[in-house]
Amino acid sequence: MLNGSELVKPAIRTRVEEAIKSLNYIPHDAARSLASRRTKTLGAILPTLNNAIFAEGINAFERTARDKGYTLVLSISNYDLDDERHLVRKMIERGVDGLLLIGNDHHPDSFEGLRQAGVQHVCAWTHVPDPPAANVGFSNAAAMVDLIDHLVAFGHRRIGMLAGLTAANDRARERVHGARKRLADHGLALPDERVMEIPYSVRAARQAFPKFAEHAVTALVCGNDVIAIGVLLEALKRGVCVPGDLSITGFDNLTLSGELQPAITTVEVLAETMGASAANLLINALEDHRPVESLQLPTRLVVRETTGPAPI
Amino acid sequence: MLNGSELVKPAIRTRVEEAIKSLNYIPHDAARSLASRRTKTLGAILPTLNNAIFAEGINAFERTARDKGYTLVLSISNYDLDDERHLVRKMIERGVDGLLLIGNDHHPDSFEGLRQAGVQHVCAWTHVPDPPAANVGFSNAAAMVDLIDHLVAFGHRRIGMLAGLTAANDRARERVHGARKRLADHGLALPDERVMEIPYSVRAARQAFPKFAEHAVTALVCGNDVIAIGVLLEALKRGVCVPGDLSITGFDNLTLSGELQPAITTVEVLAETMGASAANLLINALEDHRPVESLQLPTRLVVRETTGPAPI
Repeated sequence: MLNGSELVKPAIRTRVEEAIKSLNYIPHDAARSLASRRTKTLGAILPTLNNAIFAEGINAFERTARDKGYTLVLSISNYDLDDERHLVRKMIERGVDGLLLIGNDHHPDSFEGLRQAGVQHVCAWTHVPDPPAANVGFSNAAAMVDLIDHLVAFGHRRIGMLAGLTAANDRARERVHGARKRLADHGLALPDERVMEIPYSVRAARQAFPKFAEHAVTALVCGNDVIAIGVLLEALKRGVCVPGDLSITGFDNLTLSGELQPAITTVEVLAETMGASAANLLINALEDHRPVESLQLPTRLVVRETTGPAPI
Repeated sequence: MLNGSELVKPAIRTRVEEAIKSLNYIPHDAARSLASRRTKTLGAILPTLNNAIFAEGINAFERTARDKGYTLVLSISNYDLDDERHLVRKMIERGVDGLLLIGNDHHPDSFEGLRQAGVQHVCAWTHVPDPPAANVGFSNAAAMVDLIDHLVAFGHRRIGMLAGLTAANDRARERVHGARKRLADHGLALPDERVMEIPYSVRAARQAFPKFAEHAVTALVCGNDVIAIGVLLEALKRGVCVPGDLSITGFDNLTLSGELQPAITTVEVLAETMGASAANLLINALEDHRPVESLQLPTRLVVRETTGPAPI
């Protein structure tokens, strides 16, 4: 990782260590890391913590990293890739050994900076064939296959989608692409006018719901469970029978989705495994001085009570 | 912060800086911090991230800290104070400038270690008269006053409580104490057999609910909104009319609590303000070289649809 000749390293290290020793106090990690060229910190930049599924993932990431002697440095980008670029630079300046990012949508400077600084990194929550960096996650597009098949098998032909905001969010985008592609395999369309993008919030979903009335869809595919919960609550409030009049699906399998009545049909993602694996793969790469390996995790359709036969 | 004589500091600093310069690369923050004796990092140890209200608070803490040039180092204790003690030591070793803890329940070694190391710290989510460290938060006991008054005004006399686990959690304990004390002011009792402690989860709340049947309570005070959501869902599933047969209250005012039907009567806490204030107060103390100030924030009873007149 040193820019200079490897040969001078031991001499420099000795000088730094001597200087540190003379500080006459128990050196904290900043001092120790200077000597070892490693800070034993892993960075993570999340789009938000106000999403139970990221919180679960980062909980596992932190725990796994800590068990292996690494500390977590955390920043939140609020889904702003320019903001994130600054945070990546900050992380590099802080000397993190490795960095976790969410998804593959990042400013080119972010990747370039990480490469130049030799900071190992991994993009979680996604897995695509040609990723810009190692991926630890699932295919957001492929996850829609079983879900669409399930709806089509129930006779649904006019399907709508309430997606998350797709700008700066490849996961949300891939879910729309995946749904559209699988519907096409069945000879069905998901035209733009039946796809609406909204922020991941119960309130936004409730407000968006009535705008779908004119499209007379029989099933509404939601970009995640928070949106599905909002849609379900608003549908019930308006006297729409679920799934008699309308089928609803989510994505994430939040705890609550299985507890509501009717319980929500959704896609389970292994958030905890993803967080723990991201930490393990980063640390393995760091300790063995090799590139971070990618890992694909499965998703699983969880059929519950919000999906049923399309109304005739 | 140096243990040795202040007089030797400039000389040592020069030697360290020389050693760093000779490393022949742009020094990262570990190097820079050695020179400046400050790491510009704030630590935070949360009991869990799997709780929307902590996630919201830490989101604000991180954003505020970052705006002032500080980076967040985060650890999770899983409500284990022994575990937390090790994490505090880790934070000290990492050289954090300041540390955020949740609540006032901490291992004595944690406070002692922080004091010895001269690391500024603040305990959030609580505010008591004689805190072991600066408090940024609200009185969990006083927050119950308006809530109990509201139930008593509706004629409730037999009230039960589904509290969070109170071991290692002064916030949960204070809410029980606060409810009991206010009931006593009204000449009413909250006997031990009508208080049950459960983990903060929808599932645990659902499972606990039927055990309250024998106590014939007319109102169930829940230690937080997650428990209240579980109780509400289970009550509705069992055909219990809310609030006709049973009134239910929560604590936290999670977004979802206002969206469910019936919407949950709860106590609003200013999680975002708390997180931002904790960061500001820590940073002010650090930059002005003075102790961290305490700050008391209000709570607010939010009356919605799960509370009503006691059945006759």
